Amino acid sequence: MRYFPGQFITFEGIEGTGKSTHARRLFAFLEENGYPVLFTAEPGGTEVGNQIRSILLHPQTGGIDAITELFLFEASRREHVLQVIQPALQSGRIVLCVRFCDSTIAYQGYGRGLSIEMIQYLNRLATNDLMPDLTLLLDIDPEEGLRRSFHHTSPQELRFEEEFLKKKEILCSIRNGFFKIAAEEPKRFKVVSTIESKEVVFEKIKNCVLSVIQDKKRRNMS
Amino acid sequence: MRYFPGQFITFEGIEGTGKSTHARRLFAFLEENGYPVLFTAEPGGTEVGNQIRSILLHPQTGGIDAITELFLFEASRREHVLQVIQPALQSGRIVLCVRFCDSTIAYQGYGRGLSIEMIQYLNRLATNDLMPDLTLLLDIDPEEGLRRSFHHTSPQELRFEEEFLKKKEILCSIRNGFFKIAAEEPKRFKVVSTIESKEVVFEKIKNCVLSVIQDKKRRNMS
Repeated sequence: MRYFPGQFITFEGIEGTGKSTHARRLFAFLEENGYPVLFTAEPGGTEVGNQIRSILLHPQTGGIDAITELFLFEASRREHVLQVIQPALQSGRIVLCVRFCDSTIAYQGYGRGLSIEMIQYLNRLATNDLMPDLTLLLDIDPEEGLRRSFHHTSPQELRFEEEFLKKKEILCSIRNGFFKIAAEEPKRFKVVSTIESKEVVFEKIKNCVLSVIQDKKRRNMS
Repeated sequence: MRYFPGQFITFEGIEGTGKSTHARRLFAFLEENGYPVLFTAEPGGTEVGNQIRSILLHPQTGGIDAITELFLFEASRREHVLQVIQPALQSGRIVLCVRFCDSTIAYQGYGRGLSIEMIQYLNRLATNDLMPDLTLLLDIDPEEGLRRSFHHTSPQELRFEEEFLKKKEILCSIRNGFFKIAAEEPKRFKVVSTIESKEVVFEKIKNCVLSVIQDKKRRNMS
């Protein structure tokens, strides 16, 4: 694993937890307060990544195979890490990223039943072993999450939502998968329930991120 | 490895060896002679695969990372195997396929320097361990091959040719890579130089394929 001077913070969770909303709000807050910060999201974030994103999320793509899906997520991630995330971290920025390796373990591993070890191997290949400093796992009841997601997502990007609407048990497996991953790495993860008001949830996220940023500052100064 | 009643024949080699030309001609010959046969090519061959093909081969994509490239080839291959090749083999057809796993080992392994073992692992993941019954390795001098390929390839699919024109030594490594792969599996491979006239080359290919088809027929009857 290489050392990067910036901070890498990821937002994870099932559909409709408000990952993008809170990450964007945090981006605005940090920028206003003078922090060098970048907002980005997977799949996508690069030219090739955006083409892959449209294959992965467009409902027209239909039911592609789980391993195909995995290869496509990793291809998009590879470009994202090399072209966007690593350079930003190297220049000392705080990178806020919606979805990263944990989503692939939760969705393609716990959701679709692919081998977790195999996915971890591909994740390492795609990222050069880059790991987030902090991962915020936002949680919500799957039914409520799907309802919210259908409201907020572009019709061109509803492939997963449409699938989960028919097979809600997959979404429950993915949610449980996220909990298992978080339990294995309690230092990196912070689980935040989004059942409370947006303001309360955002306060929690903000305080958590600020304390991680200040911790690292202290460690760098000492 | 699973058993499929059909025959799986792949055409490999660097740019400009006439893989597609000879495979299409063989397809026509076999069809005229009453064999159930399918012509296909990588990357592509499925709806998702064709979208990936346009990312991989379009010159606008420019210099993407070797591991990204690898993930994209494997994603395209996975769909191709599941949707096209396996069903055709299961129904007893002879499948003629331009480029398959060996190209990935030659280009991304010997050409770009990625680990051969890693590529073999991803090839197995993508194909469920499906291996060709016969691989025709067509060979040509790289300079002459590039010249021919620029004549025959659509301008939208010249990304590799444009790269190799600038770095001819890569194409030599790939060609040598193909020779190494063929030397490791002499039973599966037949190397055919394309320095002679199209007619002479095609006769060699045709005779080789017919003998493999008849061998399998004999084995199935005995």
